Amino acid sequence: MDLSAGGYLVVYNVLSLGIASMLFTTIFLFFAKDRVLPKYRMAIMVSATVTGIAAYHYFRMFDNFIEVFGPEAVDGATYNVGYRYVDWFLTVPLLLVETIAVLALAAAVQRSLLVRLIPAAALMIGLGYPGDARLDLLYEGDASLWGLFSTIPFLYILYVLFVELGKSLERQSAPVQRRIKELRLLLLATWGVYPIAFIFNMGAVASEGGFIAREVGYSIADILAKCLFGLMIFSIARMKSAEDDAEFAKVENREHA
Amino acid sequence: MDLSAGGYLVVYNVLSLGIASMLFTTIFLFFAKDRVLPKYRMAIMVSATVTGIAAYHYFRMFDNFIEVFGPEAVDGATYNVGYRYVDWFLTVPLLLVETIAVLALAAAVQRSLLVRLIPAAALMIGLGYPGDARLDLLYEGDASLWGLFSTIPFLYILYVLFVELGKSLERQSAPVQRRIKELRLLLLATWGVYPIAFIFNMGAVASEGGFIAREVGYSIADILAKCLFGLMIFSIARMKSAEDDAEFAKVENREHA
Repeated sequence: MDLSAGGYLVVYNVLSLGIASMLFTTIFLFFAKDRVLPKYRMAIMVSATVTGIAAYHYFRMFDNFIEVFGPEAVDGATYNVGYRYVDWFLTVPLLLVETIAVLALAAAVQRSLLVRLIPAAALMIGLGYPGDARLDLLYEGDASLWGLFSTIPFLYILYVLFVELGKSLERQSAPVQRRIKELRLLLLATWGVYPIAFIFNMGAVASEGGFIAREVGYSIADILAKCLFGLMIFSIARMKSAEDDAEFAKVENREHA
Repeated sequence: MDLSAGGYLVVYNVLSLGIASMLFTTIFLFFAKDRVLPKYRMAIMVSATVTGIAAYHYFRMFDNFIEVFGPEAVDGATYNVGYRYVDWFLTVPLLLVETIAVLALAAAVQRSLLVRLIPAAALMIGLGYPGDARLDLLYEGDASLWGLFSTIPFLYILYVLFVELGKSLERQSAPVQRRIKELRLLLLATWGVYPIAFIFNMGAVASEGGFIAREVGYSIADILAKCLFGLMIFSIARMKSAEDDAEFAKVENREHA
């Protein structure tokens, strides 16, 4: 598969945007953790770790992309979609950890949510990879079957986040509940992009349009689902810190809820 | 388009100046945040993030420039003005956030200013790119039209900063008001350079003079609008910290207003 000059530039710039967004969200969040109460700092540090791992993978993908499609393309080099799956294998469970951690629920409730969410996330990523990498493990062109397998844990995660987690939201203040509902909507909207991008590139033969749509879709979804998501987690932690501690609210010029 | 030896050296050195300015303003501001009261630290961290993102892009632009025009120029490599637009897409909204954040206004006022400023900034950058990259999306040589489109949100941002923000300045002390007025003048003067640099390179055919004028114009404007601007934000935060807290003023040897 070849890329046109315009297609090359689009993917090139979107991967570079990915590096800049991930890298500086990471640095910002590691410094910003001191702007919330200690009990919320783990959630912020996990968020920073998620974008940090993603920054590393975007550097690799950017270099790999140039090696395959750039002006000095290396013969026999192939574009490795595995970077994305290794990234997600590490970052998606951590995203679920930061979401649960920022709520500061009782330890037993946290554990019960995470023992269900984390294996489901690992399964979702692991089952998607053979399809996206066109490994043809079961039969030729079996990508749609792997996509289907991967959708089952995906739906289970959404069920846990919307139904099970919903039950523990009642203990939060009204503004925090609103922000958490926005957070879940962001998660639903961005996670929904992944299967669509997957389907775009599922055709029997790799096509330029499918490749570009997949790379742009995955990258924009990643930036929203990791950077914007992490900043919203930070914002929830700031709100809850101000609610928990009037002195903090005063020192940080945060209005009391 | 070819570059003369002198033209090459000018752009090369100005891009390197960009790296040095952005990188060390970032590092300085991340450490300097502890020299203001906690409620102003978010503004300083956002300033540091702005120059950090710009440092990343200046490293990329410098390498890309050498790849295209250097002694070992790569066949088929092109100079990617997209780096600047991706940079501005991230940093211009953040510059507006740091400006609003340092004023420590009421949360409702902050929100009302930012929901108008940030979409306008994104629109301004997004509409400028097709012209500057000579994508000819509408017709051949349509750069001036995109420049015109981009000017509309640009003027709106200036209106909000000068008229709407002006109303909330009355609550600030006289020295802080003076410094904020200087800050707005710096913003007006540096942001005014971008359309001029854009016009320089708008000719039907890419010319050496137009290219050099654009790169030097964008780089100097960037350094003033991000590094000097960020340091002025820091200075406002120091003044306001000393005004808010006599103990801070004494410990930091800052005169009281």
